Amino acid sequence: MAGNSFGTLFRLHTYGESHGKAIGGMLDGCPPGLKLDLAFIQKQLDRRKPGQNLISTPRKESDKVEILSGIFEGMTTGTPIGFLLPNEDQRSEDYSEMKTAFRPSHADFTYTSKFGIRDHRGGGRSSARETACRVAAGAIAMQLLKEQGINIFSYVSQVGSIVLNKSVEEIDPLKIDEFQVRCPDAETAAKMQKLIEEIRDEGDTIGGIITGVIRGCPVGLGEPVFDKLHADLGKAMLSINAVKGFELGSGFASVAMRGSEHNDAYIANGGKISTQTNHSGGVQGGISNGEDIYFRVAFKPVASIKKQQQTVNEAGEPMDLAIKGRHDPCVVPRAVPIVEAMAALVLADHWLRSKAIIPAHVR
Amino acid sequence: MAGNSFGTLFRLHTYGESHGKAIGGMLDGCPPGLKLDLAFIQKQLDRRKPGQNLISTPRKESDKVEILSGIFEGMTTGTPIGFLLPNEDQRSEDYSEMKTAFRPSHADFTYTSKFGIRDHRGGGRSSARETACRVAAGAIAMQLLKEQGINIFSYVSQVGSIVLNKSVEEIDPLKIDEFQVRCPDAETAAKMQKLIEEIRDEGDTIGGIITGVIRGCPVGLGEPVFDKLHADLGKAMLSINAVKGFELGSGFASVAMRGSEHNDAYIANGGKISTQTNHSGGVQGGISNGEDIYFRVAFKPVASIKKQQQTVNEAGEPMDLAIKGRHDPCVVPRAVPIVEAMAALVLADHWLRSKAIIPAHVR
Amino acid sequence: MAGNSFGTLFRLHTYGESHGKAIGGMLDGCPPGLKLDLAFIQKQLDRRKPGQNLISTPRKESDKVEILSGIFEGMTTGTPIGFLLPNEDQRSEDYSEMKTAFRPSHADFTYTSKFGIRDHRGGGRSSARETACRVAAGAIAMQLLKEQGINIFSYVSQVGSIVLNKSVEEIDPLKIDEFQVRCPDAETAAKMQKLIEEIRDEGDTIGGIITGVIRGCPVGLGEPVFDKLHADLGKAMLSINAVKGFELGSGFASVAMRGSEHNDAYIANGGKISTQTNHSGGVQGGISNGEDIYFRVAFKPVASIKKQQQTVNEAGEPMDLAIKGRHDPCVVPRAVPIVEAMAALVLADHWLRSKAIIPAHVR
Amino acid sequence: MAGNSFGTLFRLHTYGESHGKAIGGMLDGCPPGLKLDLAFIQKQLDRRKPGQNLISTPRKESDKVEILSGIFEGMTTGTPIGFLLPNEDQRSEDYSEMKTAFRPSHADFTYTSKFGIRDHRGGGRSSARETACRVAAGAIAMQLLKEQGINIFSYVSQVGSIVLNKSVEEIDPLKIDEFQVRCPDAETAAKMQKLIEEIRDEGDTIGGIITGVIRGCPVGLGEPVFDKLHADLGKAMLSINAVKGFELGSGFASVAMRGSEHNDAYIANGGKISTQTNHSGGVQGGISNGEDIYFRVAFKPVASIKKQQQTVNEAGEPMDLAIKGRHDPCVVPRAVPIVEAMAALVLADHWLRSKAIIPAHVR
Repeated sequence: MAGNSFGTLFRLHTYGESHGKAIGGMLDGCPPGLKLDLAFIQKQLDRRKPGQNLISTPRKESDKVEILSGIFEGMTTGTPIGFLLPNEDQRSEDYSEMKTAFRPSHADFTYTSKFGIRDHRGGGRSSARETACRVAAGAIAMQLLKEQGINIFSYVSQVGSIVLNKSVEEIDPLKIDEFQVRCPDAETAAKMQKLIEEIRDEGDTIGGIITGVIRGCPVGLGEPVFDKLHADLGKAMLSINAVKGFELGSGFASVAMRGSEHNDAYIANGGKISTQTNHSGGVQGGISNGEDIYFRVAFKPVASIKKQQQTVNEAGEPMDLAIKGRHDPCVVPRAVPIVEAMAALVLADHWLRSKAIIPAHVR
Repeated sequence: MAGNSFGTLFRLHTYGESHGKAIGGMLDGCPPGLKLDLAFIQKQLDRRKPGQNLISTPRKESDKVEILSGIFEGMTTGTPIGFLLPNEDQRSEDYSEMKTAFRPSHADFTYTSKFGIRDHRGGGRSSARETACRVAAGAIAMQLLKEQGINIFSYVSQVGSIVLNKSVEEIDPLKIDEFQVRCPDAETAAKMQKLIEEIRDEGDTIGGIITGVIRGCPVGLGEPVFDKLHADLGKAMLSINAVKGFELGSGFASVAMRGSEHNDAYIANGGKISTQTNHSGGVQGGISNGEDIYFRVAFKPVASIKKQQQTVNEAGEPMDLAIKGRHDPCVVPRAVPIVEAMAALVLADHWLRSKAIIPAHVR
Repeated sequence: MAGNSFGTLFRLHTYGESHGKAIGGMLDGCPPGLKLDLAFIQKQLDRRKPGQNLISTPRKESDKVEILSGIFEGMTTGTPIGFLLPNEDQRSEDYSEMKTAFRPSHADFTYTSKFGIRDHRGGGRSSARETACRVAAGAIAMQLLKEQGINIFSYVSQVGSIVLNKSVEEIDPLKIDEFQVRCPDAETAAKMQKLIEEIRDEGDTIGGIITGVIRGCPVGLGEPVFDKLHADLGKAMLSINAVKGFELGSGFASVAMRGSEHNDAYIANGGKISTQTNHSGGVQGGISNGEDIYFRVAFKPVASIKKQQQTVNEAGEPMDLAIKGRHDPCVVPRAVPIVEAMAALVLADHWLRSKAIIPAHVR
Repeated sequence: MAGNSFGTLFRLHTYGESHGKAIGGMLDGCPPGLKLDLAFIQKQLDRRKPGQNLISTPRKESDKVEILSGIFEGMTTGTPIGFLLPNEDQRSEDYSEMKTAFRPSHADFTYTSKFGIRDHRGGGRSSARETACRVAAGAIAMQLLKEQGINIFSYVSQVGSIVLNKSVEEIDPLKIDEFQVRCPDAETAAKMQKLIEEIRDEGDTIGGIITGVIRGCPVGLGEPVFDKLHADLGKAMLSINAVKGFELGSGFASVAMRGSEHNDAYIANGGKISTQTNHSGGVQGGISNGEDIYFRVAFKPVASIKKQQQTVNEAGEPMDLAIKGRHDPCVVPRAVPIVEAMAALVLADHWLRSKAIIPAHVR
């Protein structure tokens, strides 16, 4: 149970270290007959890839995905979709000091302690490069969901203390990529961009928040008790590198509210039942209620900083460390497609799971 | 994949509706040779049970657990532990109106839509009564972990806008149950108690936050990539009724911090490597680092309020609803043992999983 | 992963030792809206229960199943079905000698070695009494399948060297229970009955074969590669106590056949494609082809014999042992409903799994 | 749940069609610190590959495995081992007729019915080429097991009606590969070889049996109830293309035996408990007892024959078919490494699972 698999019916398995031959994976359980737009998969990968602009790491990876199976004449066949992304532009020498040093707030110490052995080059398996596989698979899930009328997008809603003051309903998804920082508001985006550039020039890093939105979700996705839809979304987001928090709908703010204020009253419009407010964030009792699903994901500042830090090495000796490599001053702009991918994997899985809850008398 | 199972090696399966014959479950994968303290299991159940004091629902359930298997002469045998809690004090008539009404922010509408059929009495499977099974199993997990030196506790750190101003290190676990509200500080507890009583008298409800703490966790629990320790903790907490948010360590506050400020510097004391600060919350790269693990769980206000609300019934007709039944004005005091139980289930599972990562040459 | 669960979407979890308070289980994933015939469940349990006639053990268990959840007004609700069977008529004193003795070809030695502790009374968890839970759950699965037109039955086709000389097509399922030995042929049944009575009087035991048949299975159940339909059927049967072999269709006899002789030619009748012969046993490439599925299951002679045997005890000392207790001279007549139950669990699971292979464009 | 994964803790996931870009897989859960002998992996692949001699298909595939991750400086790291085998020598034109024809006793019809779409070239996902991935992963499992003193081998014990008359104890594993047919007895091997050549020249095929042996297995592998060691071995074998039957130890022959004859008496030699006979085949109550584990696997004759056959096409029209392609007259010689691989995957998984059954008081 080494934890490299995600999902129950729509399952992603990933492998690969940042400085090995390739990273890759296998998407199992994708239904047959889906006409795949390969350009869309690549587009999502390009949104995640390093080196895309001045506020991301200057490291270059072309991140071209090769699909090895499961597609025949442009169509999914229902068999597993194997894929890989060759590793390029590796400067393993940047990591020679890290052979024995434990970088603060990185996984070096915990991996070494757990496994007794570690591919130290570029963080090995703990590198955020692994998320490229999630983005590739998520882009397939997004296409499957689109056929069902389910649309997923996410955007940067906070960087440091700069907060986007717009509700989910006010967001135009087409505006997100107009700004490098992926915040769909010109003024706020400019402030965020400026802050990230300053932080970068100081050799430091800063955190941020991504808001995820799922529109067009039918009523009925999610399972009672343990596999509630938002519990699986939470796990999905918390499994992304650098994430420290997750909240659905009203989230932590609900704590100070009263029931009479927080409850979403039902109304009926021509047979369709909906809610007047949406503090629930589109999920009630763990099951989607047909309203927009929205959630917020908190990312801590990237641990790799150029500033000198105190640490210890494998022998337990104190040492000073200034991390070389090429790193992001703020991870949230590049994490937008990762959040979308993980949300899509959860939704696709629960959509397939809901198909198995077929009333017994239906043939 | 109906979602009534939790864990991979240390697995809990639960069944039961609030107004059926019994709720129950089966804990599979508990190692043999654990001497069980049955009184401790009952004590945790008593901390969760309704009717324990004036700020909880006056509903009475004795919540006596019957263990049916897996124990021989007081010891676990390694075979599954079956258990059940008979249902008592059911006033199904309180729920007759709910036969067709969709209570706002409850699961009535989503269950009916998903399954086409619903046991409306007391919320059926969506009732928080199901968490009693988690508490029973979690109390076994806590005993298993205690043998390994791992201790888990949780406490109420916020009710409405009343915040406990104490850090995790300052908490004395023995003080938690001195106050009905389970906040280990006399002055804050008194304020919270007063607020809950006021809210109760208004027929309304209020939210709150529980902080969970895991002490004595060895380095190395948690798996890379998807099954990160805090991802599984997050899913566990988000699967509890009424939970809207989860954060580990610095959580959402980390967003406004810089990497140079947030990173936890390593230090070595006589061979033992630890960190100077603990913004990471005891987990790095998804794996425990030996520091205290702490996290916060946000609970929304209970949806069952006595105040009159607008809603619709199954026929889509508007109606007014004042929920009778007997409900909690604030769920967090009774949710403390649930948070502990879910944390224990996650830790016990990852402890067993870590046993399988045995270096290949070890026999 | 303690192995007390079976199935992926339609899942059975069981617990319980033969001399504890109860055995029981939980069936998860049963679709909602199935009108359950409880009498049929009890009937299948009665076919399995000890003491039903002169060729079965005189041990008495009423084997009354109590359903605790998941049923509302006679209908499944889609939530887990918890159930239990209280243990009765236990003569634990019969097993006092077994406290330290390792009964030959029983699980005493392997359980003690694996777990370090063992409930020795009546075989504990290794007792065939556990199969009553499978029969209860399987009887629910059979009702779900019947709604889909899938019928399952099994019968005794061999006892010792006495072989039923009838092909699967010649069997009338209604005749099976006309004979205590559950072989649907008067003459062969009489011979088998006589042999079992002789063996019983000698204090010895004898093996047998059960043939299982699945009629009305639609094309398309079973998954490529690892979860082939017959691979899952094989695992299901091999997990039954005392089973030593499994074969599908032509089975071991296919070895001596040529491809030209063994291949099942396709024919089309008014649009429906079928095969002229059925050496494949209804499965091709791991997926059902619409023909009858049939298979054979080999049961070894019961290990509990009254005759004196040589063995060792926990201290490794040699000793003589004559097993007292009350045991079956031949297990196959009582194992018929177990084979049916396990087949039904596999089919119901694969039927639900097939629902998730929905072409991507279908909403 | 598309069935392309095998194992619980030691897990193999495979993907790929016979005529796509590559087949490959990912082995997850392999413990860290195993020094891998890559030449051994290739050797096992070479034993399976087509074109190795005159009694196998003349199709040529070099079957060179590329390992992409999970190995650092020759050692497993505990992270997933990704690997692939590029597809070569594809004569897709041989399969043009099969675009619409349903080959008798092949998976063409069932795949088309199930998925609605099918990569017809070379059988696509149903091709036995998929088993190369199992052999690659199994060769890693065999090395892990060897460190624990567990050795696995298998050999051809029957072809058509020609039976090897030697008991498992008499077999010298080193002799198996001395003969193309992989039967470790000169005289029998010669007869089998002659028969296969005759069958090949007739354009026909013949079945066979492989006997598998596991030596040095410690007491205690396998789980009670559903995941019995031999149930998992049975599923593993039945998931191999063309397998129709599986039996452990005395198998189907046990049916005609009496308990007094079949029971394996325990004896103690200097503290070590063993059995005098081994009808149980090394497993009792689903758990290994320390004796040799042995089992037999029945393979039907290969369905691809050159002889003309009757069948129907996708339109349901009758047609004659003589399969061109290049196929094996008898599959068992090449299936020997596949049986070994699947046995190794099961054993490695249960070895890891047994590590999690750690007495509760052990730290």
